[in-house]
This record gives sequence, structure tokens and C-alpha cells, in this order.
Amino acid sequence: MLSALELCGSASSIHGEGRAARQRVEAARAEVAALVGADPKNVIFVSGASEANALALSLDWQRGRASSPLGHGLVSTIEHASVGAGGQIPADRLSLLPVDGQGRLDLVAAAERIAALEGPALVSVMLANNETGIVQPVADLADLVKGAGGLLHSDAAQAAGKMPVDLAASGADMLTLSSHKLGGPGGVGALVLASDALHRPSPPIRGGGQERGRRAGTENIAGIAGFGAAASAARTKLEARRAHMAALRARLETGLRQISPDVVIFGETVERLANTTCFALPGIAAEMALIALDLEGFALSSGSACSSGKVRNSHVLAAMGVAPELASGALRLSSGAETSADEIDSFLAAWKRLRDRLHGTKRDRAA
Amino acid sequence: MLSALELCGSASSIHGEGRAARQRVEAARAEVAALVGADPKNVIFVSGASEANALALSLDWQRGRASSPLGHGLVSTIEHASVGAGGQIPADRLSLLPVDGQGRLDLVAAAERIAALEGPALVSVMLANNETGIVQPVADLADLVKGAGGLLHSDAAQAAGKMPVDLAASGADMLTLSSHKLGGPGGVGALVLASDALHRPSPPIRGGGQERGRRAGTENIAGIAGFGAAASAARTKLEARRAHMAALRARLETGLRQISPDVVIFGETVERLANTTCFALPGIAAEMALIALDLEGFALSSGSACSSGKVRNSHVLAAMGVAPELASGALRLSSGAETSADEIDSFLAAWKRLRDRLHGTKRDRAA
Repeated sequence: MLSALELCGSASSIHGEGRAARQRVEAARAEVAALVGADPKNVIFVSGASEANALALSLDWQRGRASSPLGHGLVSTIEHASVGAGGQIPADRLSLLPVDGQGRLDLVAAAERIAALEGPALVSVMLANNETGIVQPVADLADLVKGAGGLLHSDAAQAAGKMPVDLAASGADMLTLSSHKLGGPGGVGALVLASDALHRPSPPIRGGGQERGRRAGTENIAGIAGFGAAASAARTKLEARRAHMAALRARLETGLRQISPDVVIFGETVERLANTTCFALPGIAAEMALIALDLEGFALSSGSACSSGKVRNSHVLAAMGVAPELASGALRLSSGAETSADEIDSFLAAWKRLRDRLHGTKRDRAA
Repeated sequence: MLSALELCGSASSIHGEGRAARQRVEAARAEVAALVGADPKNVIFVSGASEANALALSLDWQRGRASSPLGHGLVSTIEHASVGAGGQIPADRLSLLPVDGQGRLDLVAAAERIAALEGPALVSVMLANNETGIVQPVADLADLVKGAGGLLHSDAAQAAGKMPVDLAASGADMLTLSSHKLGGPGGVGALVLASDALHRPSPPIRGGGQERGRRAGTENIAGIAGFGAAASAARTKLEARRAHMAALRARLETGLRQISPDVVIFGETVERLANTTCFALPGIAAEMALIALDLEGFALSSGSACSSGKVRNSHVLAAMGVAPELASGALRLSSGAETSADEIDSFLAAWKRLRDRLHGTKRDRAA
């Protein structure tokens, strides 16, 4: 990124400076494509996952000559708000797909909804949830969607770098990726297409011919270079990082149970990303816990962080049928490649202090 | 930017890391606001000028309770493609405003168009053109637009940092700014509003509550920090930089005339940005000149650089009535704060070699 910041040319200019910038962009494009097994020419760089989702969510996508126009949009109840907002799908053509009590897409309900529609649908279901880490049955869904002539988008922002993500294996026609979720800089992401026959005639940001006319705007060369480097590391170090994070998660969750046996770990029995634990202890409010743990040096999230600094009850937990009283205490702890077992132990010690203080308060009140 | 790259929190998170990121974003917002005399809360950070223009160009803007809905869009014939594409204004509600032979908006024609419309319009005319540097009569246009109850957007991407840009003095309701045009990094920009009563209910990128719900997506913190630093330098150093670039431009244009007396400098007699010279010499094709000058180390542009690496005839020069044969030779040389008089002289020497070679070729052909 630092060397890319020194480049002063526009990657669309044909002079030498422009060509040097172009090379950096194309090298990063190849790295991002390799992360998910895509063709580099089908990687569209955008300003982040929210923009990638906005670009994906349109009924205007054309899929070659023979296909029928998309008539309806279906998104799951646990999507990130940038998918839940529906992009440019008209509100009267957008419906929700439910999840079960374990936070996984209800495939039976999805099949029924898809069968009940007239004409093919654009369906969007994330690869793994950003709050709970719960992995979604996207490949199974892809069979349903494609059987009905539809198009499948999957937001892989949370999954990529934490589990293997292969575009072909996912069955998705479009994948959203986020640089900062991979350890790269904020403000850059990509929409990756499974085929260059996919075409949206009027994308949200039009103007210059950048990104093969699919996304206008002078390129964020440093950000793209950082995204490429992060994608490369995410690909080559995936298994080592995953094993490391899975060991930390097991250590964390074992400790949480020992300290607070009544803790609820959401999605505990289903496949989850190795780095995410979403949990709640009845009687501990999330906002209080966040502030107390922040003072001890731990940065947790309550619900989705991608909001306006407010602590709100999670739509994801509500969709899973979690009672509001319990959901209001939900905390999310994410580890990364740099997190150590000592840090997990320090967190557990802080959690124990918090829990003991709470129990003390309760006893005082009862007395 | 380098220190901002070290921040690993999301600026929307309430933990300590999140608050540190938030402080960097807000400091940059204050700098960008100060550059154009705006209220910081009315600065919306986006991924660049193309996105700012896409956000601005909608008939959905609401302007307080009493105002009528916008019924029509008017954009000039010399806008950047990201404005010319019309954003989300339906094609059948979008019309063009012509310029005169000097490349300036035809205010008489604009007044007639505005008067002929039923209901108020959204009008978009740039502060200064990106290819010729010609400054547009935006403040006069603002009187016309507001007299008819309309809304005025102005793309100030090219003007900011090269001439004084004051939001109130411009009369515009919305201004587009670009970081990389100010010397900051690529991939960041802003739409600046004159009033927080202006509201677009469904902006293109929705999801998280960032930017007061006006633009979703985890912030490009490093890019925004760089934009803020560039805006600060652009404000405090404007007069010194402008005087420097104006002197270089005079040196360049005097030299061009001496070497090639039949050179045409577009907009020579009207107010232009101090850093831009757009010129053509009959008989020299732009593509050939670009390649020859690139080999000598000079990075010129032909028409707008914000395109797909192709050399195309300029829509700006066509709108000014420049003959296609002459327009096909149009070259743009831009200087910056770092450009020196020696570099201008070196360029002039290269230009002389190019011109002499061309004349030699012509004579050979005639012989």
C-alpha cells in the first residue's frame, strides 16, 4: 500500500504513470480472484461490501439472451443491513427467507417461496453471518435457485479469509467481498461474478469506463493494493489461521462455560466461522458489558458494529427466535490471526470480574 | 494516512479503537468543510467524485416541507461523464444545457429552459471544467435556479484547490469534491450540502447508519484522513499554489505560441483554472503526441482521463463547437504545486522536437 500511495497516475491514463497504476490494480485483481477461484476479469472493485451489495441487488441483471427477466427479490432475515435494505429492488417485489432456531436458512421454506413465485428471482443469502458466524447452506440453496432459473448472490464479506470460499463450489452467481474483513484497509471491496455474461445495464455509479464500465470512478489504488495483499495472505495462510482461531475459540468458549455455566452461545451446535463467538449471559446487559470490557482493553461488539454507534437488539437473533431479554445481552468476540491464547485468558479473567461484580450486586439487592 | 492505517477499529464501534477511528474521520470532516466554508455535519464522505455525483443526481431530494417535488433534471453539455450519465434521473426527464463558443454555460439558454419547465428542476453545472479548466458562471446560474424553486448541484472536483470555492458564494445546494484532485489519495470524495434540511430518502448505498444514514459502509479511514490533510493544505496554501501554477501556465502558453504560432489554446480568453492548458496544433494527432511525449517523460492527457484508456474525441470541445479535426489533436497539460519552471522548459523543448519532426515529415511528403 505504501508504494501504491506513491503512484500519482490514474490507472485509466495511457502514459507511463497511468500504466504503473494499472499494473498494481491488475495484480490485486488477480489476487482477489484467486482467493475465490474466479476469473480476474469478473472481479469488480468497489468501495466496500455495502456498495458491492447495492450493485448486486437489482432486478436489472441480464444473464444472456435466453433467460427471463428477474421478477422478484428474496433475501434472508439475517442479512447485513446493506442487503436487507434491498438495493434497488422495489419494496413490493422483495420478500424475506426465514432461518431456523439454529440460525440457518430454512431450505424447505426457501423452496416453497421460490416455487410460489411467477418467474425467476434474485436471491441473496450470505455465506456466513457477521454476528453469529453461523455458516449458511448456500450450495444447497443454489440448486433451488438455479432450478427455477434465478440468480444467486451471496455476501461472503464475513466468510472470506475465515473459511474456504470457492465461487464455483458455492454455486453463487455473485459474491461480495470486503477488504477490511480480510485484514486489508477499509473502503474497498469487490463484487465477483461467476460469468462475464452477467450484465447490469445501469449500475449505481456510472461515468468513466473503469472496471469495464461496471463501476465508474478513479481507482482507490492504495486501497486496492492493500486488498490484494490481504487476499493473498488470506489464501495462502487460511488453514493455519483457521486452526489458530478455532483453538482460541474453543479455549474462549470452554472458559466462558466454566466461569458462567448459564452462558448462551448462539449457534453453538452448528457450523460456525472459527473466529466468532456470539454469546449472552442472562442478567448482563450488552451496553454495560461493552463499556466495562472496553475499560479493561477489550473491543467487543454488540449486534452489528456497522451501525451508528447505537446498541440495538440484533435482527439476526430476533430472526432465530431468541427472546428480546436474552438478545439484549448479546456480545460478539472476534479473534484474528494476531490474537494470542494469553489475550483470551486475559479476557476470561475480565469476564470473571464482570460476572462476579454482577452477582455481588444481585446479592446486595436481594439482601 | 500512515497513522490512520494503523487504526484497526470501525469508526462506528463504541469501544476505544472505534472512538479513535471516529476522531480521525471527524477531524478530516472539519478540514473538508473548512475548505468550502460548509458545516461539517453536512459533509458526506463517499468513495470519490463519481459516487458523489451519483448521490446528487436524483429527483428524490427533499428540501423541507414547503417545497415542491423536483420534476426535471438539467445538466450542461460539458459535465464529466459521471454527471452526464444522469445518476438516477430518468432519461426522459433529463435535458442538456448548452455552452457558448468559449466553453461557458449559456445563461440565456439556461434561463429559457428553466422557465419552460413545469415545476422545479435539479440543475447540475460544474464549477470549472476538467478538460479545459474553464470556470463556469455558477453563482449567476444559482439565482436562476433558486428563483424557479429548484436545486443546484455543482461538481467542484476540478475547481477545489485551484481556485477559491465557497459553498455560500457559489449559491449551490450541493458540491462534489474529490480527494485525489486536491493531492489526496484516490478513492475518496465528498458530497457537501448547503443545508441539513436537504434529504434523499433512498441513497444508492444503504445499510449501516454511517454518515448520518446518508451513505452506508465502513469508513475508508486512511483515505478520509488523507483527504482531510489534502483539504487542509489546499486551503492554507491556495494563494501560493495558485500564483505558482499561474506563472507556470503563462510560461507554458507563451512558449507554445513561440514554438507553434498556430497552436489553439481552448478558452484562452476566458477565466480558467491556473493549472490547466488544453491545446491543439492542427496536424498533430493527440494519440501520437501522447505516446511521443510519454517516451520523453511527460504525462499528458487527451480529453478526459477518466475513461477506459481509449483516446476519444472530447464531448467538451464538441459542445464548444470545435471542429472534430482540431479536437482530435487536443492535449491537456496540468501542473501542480510541485511542478517547476525547469520542467515546463523541458516540456517545451520536447514539444519543439515533436513539432519539428512533424514539419519535417510534412515536407518530406510534399517533396
